[in-house]
Amino acid sequence: MDIKQYVETVGQQARQASRAMARADTRAKNQALQQIAAGIRRHSTAILEANHGDMTAAEAAGLEAAMLDRLRLTEKSVAQMADGVEQIAALPDPIGEISELKFRPSGIQVGKMRVPLGVIGIIYEARPNVTADAAALCLKSGNAAILRGGSEAIGSNRIIAKLVQEGLVAAGLPAHAVQVIDTTDRAAVGHLITLRDYVDVIVPRGGKGLISRLLAESRVPMIQHLDGNCHVYLDDDADAAMAVNIVENAKTQRYGTCNTTESLLVARSRAADLLPPIAAMLGAKGVEIRGCAETLAIVANAVPASEEDYATEFLAPIISVKVVTGIDEAIEHINRYSSHHTETIVSGDYGKALRFLREVDSASVMVNASTRFADGFEYGLGAEIGISTDKIHARGPVGLEGLTSQKWIVLGTGQVRG
Amino acid sequence: MDIKQYVETVGQQARQASRAMARADTRAKNQALQQIAAGIRRHSTAILEANHGDMTAAEAAGLEAAMLDRLRLTEKSVAQMADGVEQIAALPDPIGEISELKFRPSGIQVGKMRVPLGVIGIIYEARPNVTADAAALCLKSGNAAILRGGSEAIGSNRIIAKLVQEGLVAAGLPAHAVQVIDTTDRAAVGHLITLRDYVDVIVPRGGKGLISRLLAESRVPMIQHLDGNCHVYLDDDADAAMAVNIVENAKTQRYGTCNTTESLLVARSRAADLLPPIAAMLGAKGVEIRGCAETLAIVANAVPASEEDYATEFLAPIISVKVVTGIDEAIEHINRYSSHHTETIVSGDYGKALRFLREVDSASVMVNASTRFADGFEYGLGAEIGISTDKIHARGPVGLEGLTSQKWIVLGTGQVRG
Repeated sequence: MDIKQYVETVGQQARQASRAMARADTRAKNQALQQIAAGIRRHSTAILEANHGDMTAAEAAGLEAAMLDRLRLTEKSVAQMADGVEQIAALPDPIGEISELKFRPSGIQVGKMRVPLGVIGIIYEARPNVTADAAALCLKSGNAAILRGGSEAIGSNRIIAKLVQEGLVAAGLPAHAVQVIDTTDRAAVGHLITLRDYVDVIVPRGGKGLISRLLAESRVPMIQHLDGNCHVYLDDDADAAMAVNIVENAKTQRYGTCNTTESLLVARSRAADLLPPIAAMLGAKGVEIRGCAETLAIVANAVPASEEDYATEFLAPIISVKVVTGIDEAIEHINRYSSHHTETIVSGDYGKALRFLREVDSASVMVNASTRFADGFEYGLGAEIGISTDKIHARGPVGLEGLTSQKWIVLGTGQVRG
Repeated sequence: MDIKQYVETVGQQARQASRAMARADTRAKNQALQQIAAGIRRHSTAILEANHGDMTAAEAAGLEAAMLDRLRLTEKSVAQMADGVEQIAALPDPIGEISELKFRPSGIQVGKMRVPLGVIGIIYEARPNVTADAAALCLKSGNAAILRGGSEAIGSNRIIAKLVQEGLVAAGLPAHAVQVIDTTDRAAVGHLITLRDYVDVIVPRGGKGLISRLLAESRVPMIQHLDGNCHVYLDDDADAAMAVNIVENAKTQRYGTCNTTESLLVARSRAADLLPPIAAMLGAKGVEIRGCAETLAIVANAVPASEEDYATEFLAPIISVKVVTGIDEAIEHINRYSSHHTETIVSGDYGKALRFLREVDSASVMVNASTRFADGFEYGLGAEIGISTDKIHARGPVGLEGLTSQKWIVLGTGQVRG
């Protein structure tokens, strides 16, 4: 079978399975999830063996260390994979929820019912734990999933997918509700993202490079997550201790996450008093400061920031700093340079807090809190399939609800239109 | 200036204006809408003159009668255009609405704030009234709009757009918040639908041909509306009088609308008793019945239905009819042949009504009501920019809310992530 035909067959099978999944009741879906978790625990040795095979091949192929790190499974990470699936089983079922049911003057009652999207394509790189995690989220939200992992993880993904399918079948659900594209042929992705008839949405999980590439070619809607160039703005009315504390957490808790702050803006009236303690704290942690001319005049060991620095997600111990006239310039700067992921203001001023919330055009906008909170678990979604930097359909952390849609329902007693 | 550069300039200006629109308060937006309505009333003679010029050119170019009909404005339709704008002014402002604000264990409060999408591109055919209508919806929802009407309506669209811009400026809002693409060059559309940096969503309003063409080439998300192949299913437990009444209204009230029923399914147990009165009613109105073999055995002057007929939106006094074993076959048939627009069941059975609501995968699913109710006004949205047959972002009738997104907001008192 050629690769195009193979991907199309997977798509047809997914579409077919999605109809049964949309009808599946909460009990069956939870039972499948519990079976999957149990299967992962029971077969952890086999999963680790398969992963060991992937690791050996990847090392032989000379994959870089960070990639190997993401590929590696351990007893602990396999156990966490099973825990994660059980946590998704424990979440409330979003499907079938009826809301806003209101009578209209015509006598009909109109409302909305939450329904699955249908078939979700997940395209991801090295991490094999995404296979279990994404499958569980799609399953709980009544969708069918087509999973396309990295070729370096195919052995690990294959066995996890097999356990997922066994769990589905044990609960009386169709095995094709979760399928792994079982080929390392790169052309498979190209076919998957143009399969409009069978795939309702593509969720890419991976680096900016992967996502930009998919975005350019996809004919299917995507829940996209590009970079996280997040900002902290310290306003004229910022509490000094809170300012230092939030910058420390937002910048230095973890350098590699998308909700890490990459750029600091300080109101001119507070630059002289706030920048020295912040620079001392960052310096002690080895964070490089790239600043504007005013920052350089205050912070001795800062280096000059380029225009490009203000638009960069460093994912490293580097921060860009700019002194601004006040909230107007801060909002303008953020809306211009930000990747529209997450921004926060530190201020005790009511009016400025409200303006920041309203006027900053990002997926998450915060007052007096660390940007690190932008996360599905911290927001109470229970789990997340990704963080969207798009505005259409889903914005910010995407949980089960982001994998659903709402249809209109009308309850009548024989009404016709006049 | 070449056409690509021109469209890009329009896009840049729209993006710039969208920032001011997002900040605009309800009073300013309503004032602009009232000024626009007043301007349309005051200049109705000039609008009619411009429209007369378009009509003369269109007739000379040999445009078909239906197209001319859609292009023609009258004193009455210009007054209705002004009324429509005032009705949109009277709707509640969706922007800034904060919902679901809940405390999390970390102490932060997390919720959602409704925000505009940004820049909306509207692509439409002959009807010049869409210019005022779409502009008003985008304006009220805090968006900037780029309007691309049909080349045959350019004179009418130009003067309406000028009045819209005068209304915006009178209310202190940027004129570029609503721009008409002022060229008849067809390449403009091709550029507009690939302008990812400046256009957030495309809303096509027009025939299936236009939309399929855009869909194939668009690089910007689209709120798409394809065809409306709507179904009525008469269940074993249908009330006979209600069944006839709903079929009459759903099929014959208007033949050319997307929520008109095109296909009738009847449970086998009721075919002999329901089809004769329905056939008599339809026959009296000149509706052609294209039926399955069982239908032909009951209805004397029915003609055989082809496979293709069941998938067709006739937009004409024609209906396809099929006798089915019961609700299972009805749901299967609908999910296979429907365009996922609107379907209704006529039944007194509680369980089957619930199954139909849950299992039919269409934008609107109804019980004991005419499909003709699928409409923004009937649903209480106040106005609609279109009806989406897609699942992503917006489904079914799209009102002001469909032109918005929700960002996350976090209210803290200095919290950092542990």
